[in-house]
Amino acid sequence: MKRALSQDDLKRMVGYKAVDDYVKSGTVIGLGTGSTAAHAVDRVGEKLKSGELKDIIAIPTSIRTKEQAEKLGIPLSTLDLHSDLDVAIDGADEVDPQLNLVKGGGGALFREKIVELCAKKFIVIVDESKICDGLGPGFPIPVEIVPFCHEHTMREISKLPALQGCVPVLRLGNIANNTPDGDKPAITDNGNYIVDLKFKTPIKDPVAAGQQLKATVGVVDHGLFAGMTTVCIVAGKEGVYIKEKKVL
Amino acid sequence: MKRALSQDDLKRMVGYKAVDDYVKSGTVIGLGTGSTAAHAVDRVGEKLKSGELKDIIAIPTSIRTKEQAEKLGIPLSTLDLHSDLDVAIDGADEVDPQLNLVKGGGGALFREKIVELCAKKFIVIVDESKICDGLGPGFPIPVEIVPFCHEHTMREISKLPALQGCVPVLRLGNIANNTPDGDKPAITDNGNYIVDLKFKTPIKDPVAAGQQLKATVGVVDHGLFAGMTTVCIVAGKEGVYIKEKKVL
Repeated sequence: MKRALSQDDLKRMVGYKAVDDYVKSGTVIGLGTGSTAAHAVDRVGEKLKSGELKDIIAIPTSIRTKEQAEKLGIPLSTLDLHSDLDVAIDGADEVDPQLNLVKGGGGALFREKIVELCAKKFIVIVDESKICDGLGPGFPIPVEIVPFCHEHTMREISKLPALQGCVPVLRLGNIANNTPDGDKPAITDNGNYIVDLKFKTPIKDPVAAGQQLKATVGVVDHGLFAGMTTVCIVAGKEGVYIKEKKVL
Repeated sequence: MKRALSQDDLKRMVGYKAVDDYVKSGTVIGLGTGSTAAHAVDRVGEKLKSGELKDIIAIPTSIRTKEQAEKLGIPLSTLDLHSDLDVAIDGADEVDPQLNLVKGGGGALFREKIVELCAKKFIVIVDESKICDGLGPGFPIPVEIVPFCHEHTMREISKLPALQGCVPVLRLGNIANNTPDGDKPAITDNGNYIVDLKFKTPIKDPVAAGQQLKATVGVVDHGLFAGMTTVCIVAGKEGVYIKEKKVL
């Protein structure tokens, strides 16, 4: 009798498939962060050990991923030395029909964005629960802001036309938002604050929303990854499938 | 016999004129930073003391200006509490014919920009040496960037279409650039680095250059203040005059 696939089995399936389909010997790759991406990192380590993959250079998107890759013997570098990546593989907190993403629930949006923007192909791997009709209501958009005058910056963000209706909430406690009862602002790797933008209705134009956020003085970067995804590999109860970009 | 006016006399003249012409009782004002702006701060203190001005609330753009204003008894606040300013007065490192500015030679561009963008009127006060035909060659454009992967960010900046020909140089030593022989990167108030963009020929489109810089991942903000100036008051050898915006 076939046992039902666990959530972790599903995550492993997409992680492995991304590496098997998109990582070739002699390339520079970006390694994402989170429970799904971790399986892709494992797979790279496995294939390097078996000799199936050779001459890989990997750029990690977090300290956690760096440590995992080091343990697996994956050769690492930085964007300062290698800024042309062949492929990057990472999870997401939400994926819309145009494959725009929300990322950075864990507060690491800056490193993920700067690395993944450098990749010729950006492969997103998720389980089906991350698929949505529109970004915003299902998962708050994290925005990294400069601490100085942060209340002012939060007001300015709430006035942006493409972000109408959002409620900016300063993230307290630790950066990964798993002790949200703290009373001190959470601090990113870059020494900044995170504001979570909460929405009741979906963002109409994620590209415009991202551009307006980044153009705002006080905003360092944000968790909208619009127009970056090459392919989205989804693990559903019925198996793994490729989610196509819906043309508007 | 009339003695020749010193550089400091000229700076005082424009500082005083800006306050006399633009600061009214019962308003919220932004106080700039630097040797010219300091005269405007002095004048506000003087007029509050004499009773000529009343009910002023001032937002300083640096710790230095805050300390000067405190000594003069000027009531202070922050953008978090007051984000609608009636007027802001500050100096500049360069002023072009459209009254676009380069600012932040001292490394305080972020606080200056976030405050001065909130002012209904932004009054720029300079001595004649700051007037130029085009921004760039006369004074490097400072850009505040996130330290993580800063070499990558510097390369990305040098590739921006509106910044063609610039050479990005990481600022070493102290932040005010007056000990440029240091070997450690200078650190801003926000914990970031400053890159000085050096140009041989003038920037053709300062508005586009500013937008492209701010849109770059890793860039926090920059010293191009384009389209912000209401009036520029200039102290020349022949006296004080108002520089009109040249319509393109």
